[in-house]
Amino acid sequence: MEIIVQLTDQPIATSMAPPAELGNVGSWTEFRGLVRGEENGQRIRALEYEAYPAMAEGELRRLLGELSAKHPCLSARVIHRLGIVPVGEAAIYAGIASAHRAEGFALLAAFMDRLKQDVPIWKRRALPA
Amino acid sequence: MEIIVQLTDQPIATSMAPPAELGNVGSWTEFRGLVRGEENGQRIRALEYEAYPAMAEGELRRLLGELSAKHPCLSARVIHRLGIVPVGEAAIYAGIASAHRAEGFALLAAFMDRLKQDVPIWKRRALPA
Repeated sequence: MEIIVQLTDQPIATSMAPPAELGNVGSWTEFRGLVRGEENGQRIRALEYEAYPAMAEGELRRLLGELSAKHPCLSARVIHRLGIVPVGEAAIYAGIASAHRAEGFALLAAFMDRLKQDVPIWKRRALPA
Repeated sequence: MEIIVQLTDQPIATSMAPPAELGNVGSWTEFRGLVRGEENGQRIRALEYEAYPAMAEGELRRLLGELSAKHPCLSARVIHRLGIVPVGEAAIYAGIASAHRAEGFALLAAFMDRLKQDVPIWKRRALPA
């Protein structure tokens, strides 16, 4: 499985190029986790994410590689934003290309379930001024 | 849940506008079902989809409405292409916005599982010349 991982302090694009080798891709699933205006019942204006980029990137790759053994897909592209992410913007993007949708859905769900637990990216809330 | 359904004989855009009310959306999941170069071991060059648009659109809306009772989401946008869809292009797009990802993933998976069974859209293969 092709694995592309990126950490960025810039907004994640709202449009992504489709996977390159389209002839064999039957399923292209994309997920964006957006910052909501409240967290645990508290109004927030942003979330702030912090990480050691090399370490977080390595763990993202390792996790995707591990999960692809169980859920074989063609490619996985993950972008995680660092720094301040205002309400309404994406903190994470995952785009999974697979032959059939079942593997793609399964890889995406498993990846998101394991992300917080496995990958050292810390989050804090920015409250309204 | 806001439901937007569209049948079209034009290519489905590779980029979609995010849901309008972003403040409350925490999860935006998009799926594209692309035509693969082979189906059931046979090489194809395209699939052709046929439907009575008003009937198919009504069934798509009914199905999404039914599923949203079990998997409450904020909005669902579905585009199904009709006519000839060449290999590598999307025959269907579904974009689901929800507060949390679990409902969005569940609605998307349930919708795709029920689509062929519930919605009268017929498919045939265009073989290589």
